[in-house]
Amino acid sequence: MSAEQAAALFRSGMTVGMSGFTKAGDCKALPHVLARRAHDDGLRLTLVTGASLGNDSDGMMADSGLIARRMPFQADARLRRDINAGRVMFMDQHLSETVEQLRCGSLPPIDVAIVEAAAIREDGSIVPTTSVGNTASFVRQARQIIVELNLAMPLALEGLHDIYIPAGRPGREPIPLTSASQRIGASAISVDPARIAAIVITDSADSPSANLPPDDETRAIARHVVDFFSAEVAAGRLSPSLLPLQAGIGTIANAVLHGLLESSFSGMTMYSEVLQDSSFELLDSGQFTFASASSITLSAGMNRRFLDNVERYAQRLVLRPQEISNHPEIVRRLGIIAINTALEFDIYGNVNSTHVGGTHMMNGIGGSGDFARNAHLSIFVTKSVAKGGAISSVVPMATHVDHTEHDVDIVATEWGLADLRGLAPRERAALIIERCVHPDYRDMLRSYHARACAAGGHTPHLLAEAFDWHQRHASTGSMLEPLAEPA
Amino acid sequence: MSAEQAAALFRSGMTVGMSGFTKAGDCKALPHVLARRAHDDGLRLTLVTGASLGNDSDGMMADSGLIARRMPFQADARLRRDINAGRVMFMDQHLSETVEQLRCGSLPPIDVAIVEAAAIREDGSIVPTTSVGNTASFVRQARQIIVELNLAMPLALEGLHDIYIPAGRPGREPIPLTSASQRIGASAISVDPARIAAIVITDSADSPSANLPPDDETRAIARHVVDFFSAEVAAGRLSPSLLPLQAGIGTIANAVLHGLLESSFSGMTMYSEVLQDSSFELLDSGQFTFASASSITLSAGMNRRFLDNVERYAQRLVLRPQEISNHPEIVRRLGIIAINTALEFDIYGNVNSTHVGGTHMMNGIGGSGDFARNAHLSIFVTKSVAKGGAISSVVPMATHVDHTEHDVDIVATEWGLADLRGLAPRERAALIIERCVHPDYRDMLRSYHARACAAGGHTPHLLAEAFDWHQRHASTGSMLEPLAEPA
Repeated sequence: MSAEQAAALFRSGMTVGMSGFTKAGDCKALPHVLARRAHDDGLRLTLVTGASLGNDSDGMMADSGLIARRMPFQADARLRRDINAGRVMFMDQHLSETVEQLRCGSLPPIDVAIVEAAAIREDGSIVPTTSVGNTASFVRQARQIIVELNLAMPLALEGLHDIYIPAGRPGREPIPLTSASQRIGASAISVDPARIAAIVITDSADSPSANLPPDDETRAIARHVVDFFSAEVAAGRLSPSLLPLQAGIGTIANAVLHGLLESSFSGMTMYSEVLQDSSFELLDSGQFTFASASSITLSAGMNRRFLDNVERYAQRLVLRPQEISNHPEIVRRLGIIAINTALEFDIYGNVNSTHVGGTHMMNGIGGSGDFARNAHLSIFVTKSVAKGGAISSVVPMATHVDHTEHDVDIVATEWGLADLRGLAPRERAALIIERCVHPDYRDMLRSYHARACAAGGHTPHLLAEAFDWHQRHASTGSMLEPLAEPA
Repeated sequence: MSAEQAAALFRSGMTVGMSGFTKAGDCKALPHVLARRAHDDGLRLTLVTGASLGNDSDGMMADSGLIARRMPFQADARLRRDINAGRVMFMDQHLSETVEQLRCGSLPPIDVAIVEAAAIREDGSIVPTTSVGNTASFVRQARQIIVELNLAMPLALEGLHDIYIPAGRPGREPIPLTSASQRIGASAISVDPARIAAIVITDSADSPSANLPPDDETRAIARHVVDFFSAEVAAGRLSPSLLPLQAGIGTIANAVLHGLLESSFSGMTMYSEVLQDSSFELLDSGQFTFASASSITLSAGMNRRFLDNVERYAQRLVLRPQEISNHPEIVRRLGIIAINTALEFDIYGNVNSTHVGGTHMMNGIGGSGDFARNAHLSIFVTKSVAKGGAISSVVPMATHVDHTEHDVDIVATEWGLADLRGLAPRERAALIIERCVHPDYRDMLRSYHARACAAGGHTPHLLAEAFDWHQRHASTGSMLEPLAEPA
């Protein structure tokens, strides 16, 4: 069926589940024809995905007015604009939880699933492409399914996926996964062919990742984290193969993994939601023996290398549903080392991953909470300043909290790393200020913390000035005090 | 050995693990002699427990200066005073995580364990009393163990406990628990008798719970929650036996369970960290078929009834390590309905469970995060106002966040219940304000939210006035605006 014909299946008010996770394995054709229907007939949908889409789809659909409601993650400037204006209702969710909530009826059910496939098997089962995301659960729940068969994807992708969906409750059994490399499910998504409403042929690639190359600051952050791992190994708390690694999407977490290339660690595995260029470099170097995730999001060059060598990589890779890649049960059991990026954190180690100025959504919490809460080590990284020093990433009080101090073991910037394990809030603050804060802001934070401690409390704060830095930035363009003379 | 002789085993700087969880099964003798040593010799310890202690022990030990560091929970006015003054370093932890962190070396190891026992078996294994807490893991790790054999506890407690400790990582297997009533471990804590340094005989009871009886407000909260459950059953999202229930320690959560006595639900189970009077009333009424927890904390009268009828209750009760009662793996698998108490929550449903005025510790996060994150339904309850109306429990912005909006499905006060599932922040705010806020504060919150929305954002706020209510309360004694005329 043509994409235009398939678009006729939709009615306003429907909930649509689309494949796609951090730009990988997203539908390529239907977003365009649905946006056209929004322009022409005012079509309005609830759109649920794995995570962010590529190919400018989220922005284009937002511009068309198609998206009434959106979950669980996005990373598009124009969709973000509409979310922050209150025109799109966005549900920012832990990525492991969306299909759990669909399954138990806490969210309205998926009406139509649109999923990209590398192949359709003779029994009708669907072989996903470069992500699994929430696709398998969307297919299971949807009344109608549209398959986008992408001829640009190699058939060798078949066998890369491991599809396991937990049962409903009560009566659910343990998820039997006990190592990153284990397979517990099927290699394709089974489906009753009667529910397949359309098969649409496409022929275009995933969008490349937008990660920036490592720079001096991200290299310094990586060095601090690698040095910390070395110290843990020396202390006997980790083996030289560490524990399975997770790294969030984006430049800084990618750079930290990149830093492992120069380390002596070997026999490492990855159990993450997304594999970026650094994961493939570590597979190529032999330091990673296996990598498990829900999607593969690469630069154009690395993507070519992957697609040309799928057979070779497939022996050491698996893609799982995001419910499994991010599942608290598995994260806790395996003892993941989680490395995620903070937008800002406060002197006590409460992390804001999502809200600029405490109000405006950047992307979403993604899987960071799935991993940070139950990780063996929960590490958050960020550059110490942004906007040329006008914004400190370490602030008196986080304007929005995505990860509480309970869930944050380690914070690191280019200045250093603070190991917060076993410390009370007053001790955490002293260490964070001395180790992680840019020198231009250290005295300001020392002063804030000293005066807050004098006022008392387990987590001392001065509510009257807790957000002064953010307000100063809003009014003057900088968090720095006008009279302060930066070093 | 006498308690005084046993006290000679301790040296300053040691980490001591003590049994005791929400006042149940705590050591009765050693706290006194250790406090005396603090007075006499300046003994200073790191004290790790299951949760709060009874018998005034935390306060007495705090007064003596014994406690240098304390984790993971407390509920004592004098210890709290020292924590908030910065004299005791308190680590406020998810209750499932303390022994995980001890096991992997993220916390210094337990030097001496002090555990209350109902009996010591011929093979040396220890039968706990009214709580398991972290006792089994303390015993496994400690170099020396002091057993307090409490003759006031009935021997019939033997068989009530189910001791299961997950293995280290890597190599951990799934926890095989798939229902609240299942037994997966041993009925006593095995130990090498060579590590038992002392057995001290005691003969006194647990402290009774301090829960207040239901009042008009808590009855109204209970009614809203029960009505919500009824609607979920009617919609087919829950069966009449619901799903396993968890309720936090304290008056309000206890009152909500009490409200189930007047409901038509039956065949219910409990999978919680503590069993309070209401749990036994529901066992007695036959509506609860089974109750699983880590401790039993009752009023004096109910405690008498329990201890006199242990054999009868034991068929429908099990006490587990708090790592298992609160384990995210099990909470997610079973699909717990979690009911916990908020100190305050904001218009977006971010919950402060711990910090008065954003700075001063009340008790601790306890198990609320263990349950709320992975629950089938995460419900937070509170009275809409405190201090005779001078404090609104619903505020523009929470001054401290323990549970982010991602982890909060339902909030309820005596005025009503807000079902936040599937809603974006702006929608959550509108519903919370109309359903849950005391009428005296509704217009103030409507005004705040409307003005914040005009300023924009996914989670609109006005940073310049987000904490005005708290500052007004600090300066005038009330969050109400001086010019406002309350209805």
